[in-house]
Amino acid sequence: MRSGRTQQVLTARWGPGGSTRVPDDLIVEEPLAIRLDGALVATTMRTPGHDFELAVGFCHAEGLLADAPVRTVRYCATGSAVDSEFNVVTVETGGAAPEPRPRLGSVGSSCGLCGREAIDELCARLVRVDAPPFPFAVLATAPDVVRAAQPLFARTGAVHAAAAITREGTVSHVREDIGRHNAVDKVVGRLHLDGSLPASALALFVSGRASFEMVQKAWAAGFAAVVAVSAPSALAVDTARAAGITLAGFARDGRMNVYVEQEMS
Amino acid sequence: MRSGRTQQVLTARWGPGGSTRVPDDLIVEEPLAIRLDGALVATTMRTPGHDFELAVGFCHAEGLLADAPVRTVRYCATGSAVDSEFNVVTVETGGAAPEPRPRLGSVGSSCGLCGREAIDELCARLVRVDAPPFPFAVLATAPDVVRAAQPLFARTGAVHAAAAITREGTVSHVREDIGRHNAVDKVVGRLHLDGSLPASALALFVSGRASFEMVQKAWAAGFAAVVAVSAPSALAVDTARAAGITLAGFARDGRMNVYVEQEMS
Repeated sequence: MRSGRTQQVLTARWGPGGSTRVPDDLIVEEPLAIRLDGALVATTMRTPGHDFELAVGFCHAEGLLADAPVRTVRYCATGSAVDSEFNVVTVETGGAAPEPRPRLGSVGSSCGLCGREAIDELCARLVRVDAPPFPFAVLATAPDVVRAAQPLFARTGAVHAAAAITREGTVSHVREDIGRHNAVDKVVGRLHLDGSLPASALALFVSGRASFEMVQKAWAAGFAAVVAVSAPSALAVDTARAAGITLAGFARDGRMNVYVEQEMS
Repeated sequence: MRSGRTQQVLTARWGPGGSTRVPDDLIVEEPLAIRLDGALVATTMRTPGHDFELAVGFCHAEGLLADAPVRTVRYCATGSAVDSEFNVVTVETGGAAPEPRPRLGSVGSSCGLCGREAIDELCARLVRVDAPPFPFAVLATAPDVVRAAQPLFARTGAVHAAAAITREGTVSHVREDIGRHNAVDKVVGRLHLDGSLPASALALFVSGRASFEMVQKAWAAGFAAVVAVSAPSALAVDTARAAGITLAGFARDGRMNVYVEQEMS
């Protein structure tokens, strides 16, 4: 039995005493191909829903849009099959976005694009976030505030969340997805479609760890702060420092570890 | 202070009573570019260490090697800089592997490679695993057995593990990485380099969730079973069923949920 983003299955609960068959809700995971002005730019495994936001948010974070306005976003379903999966989304800028360069492909005889250079390139176009320090008390209580808006997590226990939080502690947008990057892309995509970027009045909450890519996406969107339920990586800390973004981790029960503090400008 | 795979920083532990500065170990995250016979095939964010295994395991799981033997694996450091990061690894088959096709790049005017087709293509070349049912008691206790071999997790609390487990419950290989896919690739790469694939006498343990990609990698390596600490996705369950792989989740304290059982062949 499947209802959009979860699917019920029978599972055998096994233990020393034997096994019992019980129903279990699983999170749905489907591929989404993202196209920009006719070019395939990514295929990501995602939980269906808010696909247009995901596509726009991804293109934004990768710098693919540059400053081109998004004209339309649409499914590119083949239409012929009844079970069309709606798993291709096209973002159209009418050719205003620069032609996407393949990030993954054959290169010549040189050593090739070094990973570190790829990272530097991704960040080089970003300017430092210029926002007043974000209230610590709001960051430390973000997990509790967002928890109430995670229905898929409540049902499956297997889905990440990302949220935009105001300085007053209100949740402005929450998105859930099996991929933590996708959850962030969906939040950023929503803000982009609403014309609400840069998000310098908001903090980004993530339900897992703060890796480099999460902080890079937050930087691209201009968030003032990132707060994670779990740990940051060393590179995430370095990146937040370069970005001028407050970075906190292990937020729970009104406590947290602050790895990078915003300086007053 | 940095020592390979962890880095110590000072963090401010913040709570209602104020903040205290304490040292904290962070997991290191660095980019690794993977090249196959001169072509860049991926850039992944990984925890340094076992990089050759990661590169070989990735190429194997993606089907890039086909049946070509790996001749050499080496760092492609530019060498000129003292702080050379050793973040490019080249897998050489002497041209025996088919030329890698870019998975991410421009396509023509058609609807493009559909995500679902990409998945089908990835799995189409794989044959069903033919192995006797894996002992449930071994799967259910895998997390406890592997925990003792997770030193980075013990220090940072922020790193995934993958392990190959024998039918007798012995851990044959454990790898830790900030990326859960990388941890699996490292285990599979080790088995590949040892000439131990297909791994039909082994189960794959993963410390997080069992998503499609984890099960697909296990299938490509021929594991008899996959056991995860957290939940599988719906697509992971479908994939395990197609693969003939036992799939269990929520393994803890000697209990687990069995989503797919191996049939006796």
